[in-house]
Amino acid sequence: MILDGKKTRSIWLNADGWSVGIFDQRRLPWAVERLALTTVDECAHAIADMATRGAPLIGAVAAYGMALALRVEADDAALERAYRQLLATRPTAVNLKWALDRVRSVVAGLPAAERAVAAYADAAALCDEDVAINAAIGRAGLEILQDLATRHPGRPINILTHCNAGWLATVDWGTATAPIYMAHDLGIPVHVWVDETRPRNQGALTALELAGHAIPHTYVVDNAGGLLMQRGQVDLVIVGTDRVTRNGDVCNKIGTYLKALAARDNGIPFVVALPSSTYDPVTADGAAVPVEERAPAEVRSLEGPDDSGTLRRITVTTAPAANPAFDITPARLITEYITDRGRIVGATALADAFRA
Amino acid sequence: MILDGKKTRSIWLNADGWSVGIFDQRRLPWAVERLALTTVDECAHAIADMATRGAPLIGAVAAYGMALALRVEADDAALERAYRQLLATRPTAVNLKWALDRVRSVVAGLPAAERAVAAYADAAALCDEDVAINAAIGRAGLEILQDLATRHPGRPINILTHCNAGWLATVDWGTATAPIYMAHDLGIPVHVWVDETRPRNQGALTALELAGHAIPHTYVVDNAGGLLMQRGQVDLVIVGTDRVTRNGDVCNKIGTYLKALAARDNGIPFVVALPSSTYDPVTADGAAVPVEERAPAEVRSLEGPDDSGTLRRITVTTAPAANPAFDITPARLITEYITDRGRIVGATALADAFRA
Repeated sequence: MILDGKKTRSIWLNADGWSVGIFDQRRLPWAVERLALTTVDECAHAIADMATRGAPLIGAVAAYGMALALRVEADDAALERAYRQLLATRPTAVNLKWALDRVRSVVAGLPAAERAVAAYADAAALCDEDVAINAAIGRAGLEILQDLATRHPGRPINILTHCNAGWLATVDWGTATAPIYMAHDLGIPVHVWVDETRPRNQGALTALELAGHAIPHTYVVDNAGGLLMQRGQVDLVIVGTDRVTRNGDVCNKIGTYLKALAARDNGIPFVVALPSSTYDPVTADGAAVPVEERAPAEVRSLEGPDDSGTLRRITVTTAPAANPAFDITPARLITEYITDRGRIVGATALADAFRA
Repeated sequence: MILDGKKTRSIWLNADGWSVGIFDQRRLPWAVERLALTTVDECAHAIADMATRGAPLIGAVAAYGMALALRVEADDAALERAYRQLLATRPTAVNLKWALDRVRSVVAGLPAAERAVAAYADAAALCDEDVAINAAIGRAGLEILQDLATRHPGRPINILTHCNAGWLATVDWGTATAPIYMAHDLGIPVHVWVDETRPRNQGALTALELAGHAIPHTYVVDNAGGLLMQRGQVDLVIVGTDRVTRNGDVCNKIGTYLKALAARDNGIPFVVALPSSTYDPVTADGAAVPVEERAPAEVRSLEGPDDSGTLRRITVTTAPAANPAFDITPARLITEYITDRGRIVGATALADAFRA
């Protein structure tokens, strides 16, 4: 997709042929800075500190983290150490484990000397597949937008999204945003309500993405979505997810559940975009998903540029604070899932689609 | 109540006997600064710019604004001018009009020379009545907390509140907070989840209030309440309101509706605290309430102290933004109303209570 007027992916191999490039998402949207990851430690730190973020992109960074580890030391102990180190970075997203399992199983049967090369190849393949997967999700969601456009000719289709499930959270396209980009590219008028997504304000990333593609959008506080739906100003909610459990429950950024409740109360379709790697057939339901509790400092202070453009960190409150990062949207509130295997309604169909 | 360790109300007559003192709530919680209002213009500006805020307190400031106007010029034209100027400051809260109507009707039949004195007396009476009203609301809500404490012995009762419906929003006690202060004073253990309440973060005011009284509390982003309820960490939601319509719909700070939906979905009582002056028997339902659309700048930038304590304004986003200030919680989602006329269930009973 496009950032700063340049076509780019969110992760790449640098010209040296081995170090891994990402955008430092702690600096976005205020500064477009690229980080070169040269060790597994740097990858683990980038994930834990949210220099990189988004369930699919975390998987890609973790896969390259395995390659970087094996490049230095490739025996079984080193393989296991890298796996465990990367797995421990974030507890909620299931793609992380999926990507790590995949790379480990690709290299485990190989002699140590061949492991690094195989891991690099698999990480690159994983990235290319992620792009194809998101494009497929986009085509599934595009049908919904085309249908809405047919039913509401002559005005933009209003989509509300929460957090950033955009191309900055995947390798390209995004999950929730892929249908929006595709509709826009086809000339279907769309307007996106961008939830701020406190405490880390990932809505600013979504707004940055949409601005890069000249897609009309409006940034609103997380509190606003209910009123917008009450007023008929939302045609569709699309969100991404960090994990969908066997019964179809959706674990996603804190606040998602509130929007799903409002969508249901106002008869608005609530659509969850996911790649197969986000489906977790092992965990029975959302109540069993560990919800990451992040540092209260993320709630209590906030960074942004002042009038002169200098980045400043200000205190929002000095009160005791809690910072749970995800919530669970029960399957009963989800109208449909859009996936790389098409549009899916209901948990049973979801399990069937991802078993195949 | 207590601020900075001193017992105070949120509005008072200064030692000069005629100018009106308030806290500059734009500076709270970072700085406790008092403003002296000396003209109707200053009162109108203080309300419109949210130097003062909270539906009941706005009514009190407006009443004193009438007195300040009549002190200078007291003929019928001046009376009408002051009324209209103050009424135009904020469109949503019904207390504003209620207070202005009340003062106008008290002074309209008097000779011009007697109007200012009568308006001052009525404004003072209105303030004293507000204190008594909030204490009565507190006693009604206290019953609910006592009942919860009996059912859950040995642990604190967890209350979630949105925005600041505390003593800083009234003359004293607060509406939603009065029961909490009373329970705490009686030794009932309580813990308050304080919604941040973007975009203006009035949760920081609620946290400041609670800290002043050493009541345990935790500040959370507006997105968090749903998860807290899913986890059973909320026993009760109490909010204030800017206007309750004839059918019992509740207009309150944007985001209230989302919390009401989550409370309903999790079987948690959702309680609305209001004085009779907030009931609007004229407006049929919430859909007919004008929702104030405030400046996008309130969403796009935020002020707070940096590490050195210097107040800085930072940019949150440069994206196009919208800033609706209120939403409507339908009567069907409200478990009960706590009022100066006791606990009330259902819109019919509410209309009956406030007609009497």
